Amino acid sequence: MKLVSFRHGGTESFGAVIDNGVVDLKKKLNNEYADLKTFLESGKVDELAITSNDVDYTLSDVSLLPVIPNPEKIICVGLNYHAHVEECGERETETPVIFYRTASSQIGHEENLLLPKESSNLDFEGEIAVVIGKEGRRISVDEAYNYVAGYACYNDGSVRDWQLRTSQWGPGKNFDGTGGFGPWLVTRGEIQDGEVLSLETRVNGEVMQSTTTNLLIFSIPEIIAFVSSYTTLKPGDVIVTGTPGGVGLKREPQLFLNEGDVVEIEVSKIGTLRNTVKVG
Amino acid sequence: MKLVSFRHGGTESFGAVIDNGVVDLKKKLNNEYADLKTFLESGKVDELAITSNDVDYTLSDVSLLPVIPNPEKIICVGLNYHAHVEECGERETETPVIFYRTASSQIGHEENLLLPKESSNLDFEGEIAVVIGKEGRRISVDEAYNYVAGYACYNDGSVRDWQLRTSQWGPGKNFDGTGGFGPWLVTRGEIQDGEVLSLETRVNGEVMQSTTTNLLIFSIPEIIAFVSSYTTLKPGDVIVTGTPGGVGLKREPQLFLNEGDVVEIEVSKIGTLRNTVKVG
Repeated sequence: MKLVSFRHGGTESFGAVIDNGVVDLKKKLNNEYADLKTFLESGKVDELAITSNDVDYTLSDVSLLPVIPNPEKIICVGLNYHAHVEECGERETETPVIFYRTASSQIGHEENLLLPKESSNLDFEGEIAVVIGKEGRRISVDEAYNYVAGYACYNDGSVRDWQLRTSQWGPGKNFDGTGGFGPWLVTRGEIQDGEVLSLETRVNGEVMQSTTTNLLIFSIPEIIAFVSSYTTLKPGDVIVTGTPGGVGLKREPQLFLNEGDVVEIEVSKIGTLRNTVKVG
Repeated sequence: MKLVSFRHGGTESFGAVIDNGVVDLKKKLNNEYADLKTFLESGKVDELAITSNDVDYTLSDVSLLPVIPNPEKIICVGLNYHAHVEECGERETETPVIFYRTASSQIGHEENLLLPKESSNLDFEGEIAVVIGKEGRRISVDEAYNYVAGYACYNDGSVRDWQLRTSQWGPGKNFDGTGGFGPWLVTRGEIQDGEVLSLETRVNGEVMQSTTTNLLIFSIPEIIAFVSSYTTLKPGDVIVTGTPGGVGLKREPQLFLNEGDVVEIEVSKIGTLRNTVKVG
């Protein structure tokens, strides 16, 4: 199933995308759940029974929001593909490199990716996002997939000069309007646990990054086990699993994003997240 | 005024602390605001009229929660006092060092400070927290205080071995139950803008850190201006302004926290945040 957060007629809601359109689940479930995060918390996603008769809107009628607009935590893994570690001149670490984004920085599918006037160093980072479906702490690698609600595409958009001004990447990873998250959450049941997915980042149609998830240094279950060893994972939490080689910062010549550029992150079995750059 | 988030009889609420007890503001304001963050958003804090007749509970009847239990963002400033920069063998940076904590890691006054079984390197960091009262982006230094709701004590509790495993401090700064935040929010009106406050950290009564806020490298208005240059600050957001010299990691001999240790962070004009260490 494909789950979305969206705005329609000025009202925020969440729903399911099926062949002929969008089912407004907030309405269908009698406003019992305020948002997709709350619905995930309920543990009732698998009980949904939807048919084409339930459709409320066409997909083009709604504005998609970040899949989870209000996660408590957005946990990002850095340097998690060999090719990216190499291009950065870094070394592999024994445990994952973890930093945080905040909800303020996120945008949905087809929303503008903002190039701030403070910088000309906006860069893309295509990634696969894991959305947590069940609360847990100290989760074992073997149990990890049971805590996954599903997957989405993520653009961990980075303002490089602000990221690298000090040892900590916080500012460059948290500019408003730089974290693309969409188009939807594909629920766990649609993808086999551990199935190899392909990931591609394109700028104006040209392939910039291309990888498969078997090349992750720390696998999705290993990341979940590590992160939950220090923090309680909660429904709606987002884990952004890392970007492969090919980022604009490390290309020769460097390639930073300009107004009007179209950035696409495509993940097999999930879909394509698309955002157009705008100064803002 | 002193504002708190608290639990009473299994129910979470928020209120004001006055001489003879706690006024339950959620009740008094007819459940119009779900929590202290929502009340700050309303911009109506200054309109509150409370007398001793409004008191619902004694202070000892309620369990205090983190001042804001659910901030969208907890923005932490690292290396922001000369003495701490020196003891860390670091150099001053041209812009603030910024990292993030998440709400999961927070505890309220008198809640247990958790020493995780994964480490024996739990350390204190006494700090002053600024709580944002008004939404803003690209706020100037001159305007910055107008965005402040008030101040609280913060213990940016750090699990040092996990903090320093990779370049990014995320894991060591986000263990569950390590971020003390309390006891209350002292509203901006109680402290003159720019007034010099003193800050002291004690472990079992012994002074470990002592400073005054005129020694901050980046002042509160400068931090607000810097952070809001990349992210929209929102009511309830927390800025933790940095710790002075004297952290356990850099003492000779090193001093890490053990079960039963009592950590107090006292800030003049605010009060004392107290937490007792427990393995958990």
